[in-house]
Amino acid sequence: MAVLQTTFRISTSGHCDVVDVTLQVSRIVAGSRIRQGIVNVACVGSTLGITTLEFEPGCVADLQRALERIAPANRDYAHNARWGDDNGYSHLRSALVGTARSFPVSDGQIVCGTWQQIVLCDFDSRARERQVLVTVVGE
Amino acid sequence: MAVLQTTFRISTSGHCDVVDVTLQVSRIVAGSRIRQGIVNVACVGSTLGITTLEFEPGCVADLQRALERIAPANRDYAHNARWGDDNGYSHLRSALVGTARSFPVSDGQIVCGTWQQIVLCDFDSRARERQVLVTVVGE
Amino acid sequence: MAVLQTTFRISTSGHCDVVDVTLQVSRIVAGSRIRQGIVNVACVGSTLGITTLEFEPGCVADLQRALERIAPANRDYAHNARWGDDNGYSHLRSALVGTARSFPVSDGQIVCGTWQQIVLCDFDSRARERQVLVTVVGE
Repeated sequence: MAVLQTTFRISTSGHCDVVDVTLQVSRIVAGSRIRQGIVNVACVGSTLGITTLEFEPGCVADLQRALERIAPANRDYAHNARWGDDNGYSHLRSALVGTARSFPVSDGQIVCGTWQQIVLCDFDSRARERQVLVTVVGE
Repeated sequence: MAVLQTTFRISTSGHCDVVDVTLQVSRIVAGSRIRQGIVNVACVGSTLGITTLEFEPGCVADLQRALERIAPANRDYAHNARWGDDNGYSHLRSALVGTARSFPVSDGQIVCGTWQQIVLCDFDSRARERQVLVTVVGE
Repeated sequence: MAVLQTTFRISTSGHCDVVDVTLQVSRIVAGSRIRQGIVNVACVGSTLGITTLEFEPGCVADLQRALERIAPANRDYAHNARWGDDNGYSHLRSALVGTARSFPVSDGQIVCGTWQQIVLCDFDSRARERQVLVTVVGE
């Protein structure tokens, strides 16, 4: 049994920017030499999310619109009122989507569907540089 | 430490069909001889979800109705407009619910509540056969 | 490679009570002597959730209001009609938020942002005592 953990950084434009990180994660898994196990993909912060999506402009736009309905950017938020912030909606979206996901590793590769990409969604109200931790556990 | 990974297939009727897979997952965990650890339950694809629910017809209907409010089947989706598809809502539901979940394994069994079942939700717009990967890591 | 699994109990007031469990989880991870790996934080039951949130009263209120919009307490639920229960909304919220999350462990500590706490959300319609399982896998 072995553990491999690697970090990479990615720049986002914020405002529900959806970034495909499948290639970075896949390379880390392939390079870990772990054949079978679990890979956890996690992002540090409280205004972003990790999920999977068919990464094409239509699905990305649909997700952005849905999150704008579920947690609108311009609604009144208690977080904003309390701290003078403008990103109460970003915190809410992050709590609902989640900041980490785990996937199976099989035959030395992460298992995702052909039309299923791992995406980082930056819900914050400004451009950010984000840190992604990839942890592979297995043998 | 050990890893056990097994796949099973399940037929769904699509259209937010909610299928209880607790028994299949429990048997794989019990058969792994891993006493303590983590089990990841993942489904391959971008139009389905894995979550937990009290599997009784009322909770299933309530989840189906809620997802119809959050991501209605008949709304205009950019994914549909772009590709001539009819399952933009399926992709959206999958991104929001997630396609994989991890649970603890204790005393050789998956830990779930009595009224808590692991369910596969097929959000696609047609009947499908789905592949579920169960990965147990522990000792 | 090693596994450590510990349970703790926590009292909640129900009704979407949001409780910060970061300290309890962090202590278990630090005490596991596992330096690098994955920690799964899971709660047993079908009327609660585990997620991350900046734990301050504003974000907590914003999450509670959003869940009241997504799955209102007083809507008609098929679960309630079938069983004479009053917590159909609690089951629905739990299925949407999820009852378990996994995070990376690095340098012997759980990796979370400064403003990112692990929270247990008790969606049930009454005060409850809840059991949280923390499972650390790594080396």
